[in-house]
Amino acid sequence: MSDRPKKIDIREEGPREGFQIEPQIFPLEDRVRLVEALAETGLKHIQVASFVSPKRVPQMADSEQFFAALRKKPGVHYTGLWLNEAGFFRAQACPNVDLTGRISLYASDAFARQNNGCGAEEMLDKQAAWMDLYDKAGIAVEAAMVMAAFGCNKEGPIAPQKVVRMARAAVELCTSRGKILPKLYLADTMGWANPDQIRRLVGLVRAELPAETALGLHLHDTRGLGLANVAAALDMGVALFDSSVAGLGGCPFAGHGDSRAAGNVCTEDLVFLCEELGIETGVDLDALIGCARLAERIIGRPLNGRLMKAGSLNAYRRAEAAE
Amino acid sequence: MSDRPKKIDIREEGPREGFQIEPQIFPLEDRVRLVEALAETGLKHIQVASFVSPKRVPQMADSEQFFAALRKKPGVHYTGLWLNEAGFFRAQACPNVDLTGRISLYASDAFARQNNGCGAEEMLDKQAAWMDLYDKAGIAVEAAMVMAAFGCNKEGPIAPQKVVRMARAAVELCTSRGKILPKLYLADTMGWANPDQIRRLVGLVRAELPAETALGLHLHDTRGLGLANVAAALDMGVALFDSSVAGLGGCPFAGHGDSRAAGNVCTEDLVFLCEELGIETGVDLDALIGCARLAERIIGRPLNGRLMKAGSLNAYRRAEAAE
Repeated sequence: MSDRPKKIDIREEGPREGFQIEPQIFPLEDRVRLVEALAETGLKHIQVASFVSPKRVPQMADSEQFFAALRKKPGVHYTGLWLNEAGFFRAQACPNVDLTGRISLYASDAFARQNNGCGAEEMLDKQAAWMDLYDKAGIAVEAAMVMAAFGCNKEGPIAPQKVVRMARAAVELCTSRGKILPKLYLADTMGWANPDQIRRLVGLVRAELPAETALGLHLHDTRGLGLANVAAALDMGVALFDSSVAGLGGCPFAGHGDSRAAGNVCTEDLVFLCEELGIETGVDLDALIGCARLAERIIGRPLNGRLMKAGSLNAYRRAEAAE
Repeated sequence: MSDRPKKIDIREEGPREGFQIEPQIFPLEDRVRLVEALAETGLKHIQVASFVSPKRVPQMADSEQFFAALRKKPGVHYTGLWLNEAGFFRAQACPNVDLTGRISLYASDAFARQNNGCGAEEMLDKQAAWMDLYDKAGIAVEAAMVMAAFGCNKEGPIAPQKVVRMARAAVELCTSRGKILPKLYLADTMGWANPDQIRRLVGLVRAELPAETALGLHLHDTRGLGLANVAAALDMGVALFDSSVAGLGGCPFAGHGDSRAAGNVCTEDLVFLCEELGIETGVDLDALIGCARLAERIIGRPLNGRLMKAGSLNAYRRAEAAE
């Protein structure tokens, strides 16, 4: 347990994940209210919305208005997601978006083809053009992400060497331009990871990274092992996590409606785990639980988070301390 | 990880937990169908129903008929729960119940008082009379359980010494009669435990137990750490767990209705974790997922289990093996 970080950094993905996957389009004021409440909890990175085809994803058609309506809190990064140049240019034209470049890689060939119409190696080749685009726009690349790093519903188990290969390639994309990659994320996109695999793959990939590159995890709770995997990762020194308030979102590959499979690990459950282990998150847990309950009221049905239904242990501890 | 067991034993508590906490009374044939399906998965211990006041718990008023309607599978234990002598005599009069004695202890005085109207020490004193009763009935004591061992909504944090004291007392209750306590369970009744606490308390309590006494855990997922706690316990060599198919049941202390806080850890998620870590459970995971989905159809709303919505990884692995 000596490798455990003293504090972790969380990238909150709930608003984009949650409002994108629901068939319904929620009132802009509700979405704004949730993002503004999240910014008050101490979270420093919030993924607000995506810039994607309004025809294919009508839920995200008004991302410009969404960002424009936000009262931004200083020190908080409000990010957007794009998948092609048109999306990037939309984000770039939008003053409230905090732009950072991202390298998108795949450990699964079949999953790369499904999402992008080209294999994992071709997807890697395309990243050089993205680096050029970001350079031209004066935007630094902040992170690379290797998707389906732990297994893939389309391809099956994923050999660790494929992940290592992509991690190495991401680092080289930066070093060949005289830059350092700040963060590399491994994504368990379809919920295949288990704690042993987390330990093995984190160990293998970290050995490939320069000391300046932090290793992060984007874990899904699709098969219930989300927080067990986080716990294993913390023991390995991982200090960067993506998560989603109330467990907003879900898995586009399994289940639907109320019985949709779980998506990202739940932010407040993650924060609770860290607090109980003595790891700082910079987040006010009770305020975050308030956000989770707000998200549930907006969506209008019970969401996946556990802690939001039971409450934190803070009140009990304060009572004991006061005795 | 060298302390990990090769295989674990699971006591399935879903039917009693699930059908007891719901306001509705479900058709007997549905309940029978679920228990019979569970018995076909390889599970060896199924807690079917409780023998409690039909006035206070009308959902369990027909426990005699429930047991009588079961076609029992050889090798499977079908148990019932009782809280007082009247309940025990009812269970004893019921031919299909597999009777085993249980010692019930509390680490929390306040919680003992709430449930039994007497403190933890008085509750301990009362166990001698239960031992006499079981002796007279020719029933062996199979397990002791220390409730609220990790924390208590009524009392706050629980000092580990209180748990150790009760564990020692349970062992002595048996050794003073020339017997060995087969199993001692620590219960995280209100979802306070975290992985570090699991490691500490398991270590402390195991040091008190004779080699012949197995240490088990009854963990709740109330605050989302259920499987992270199981993973920590497996690393400590714990090989006995209680759980509930589909996460049936819930927490009577927090939330309500669809937004009720989670109860026991979910059996199929637990089995999945073990399989992924190479630990045998003796359970057919896909058949168990079928039971979880049956439970969801009976209850009529989405239940807490994660894996039941996403499916296991077996099909993907079989496909790969066939390539």
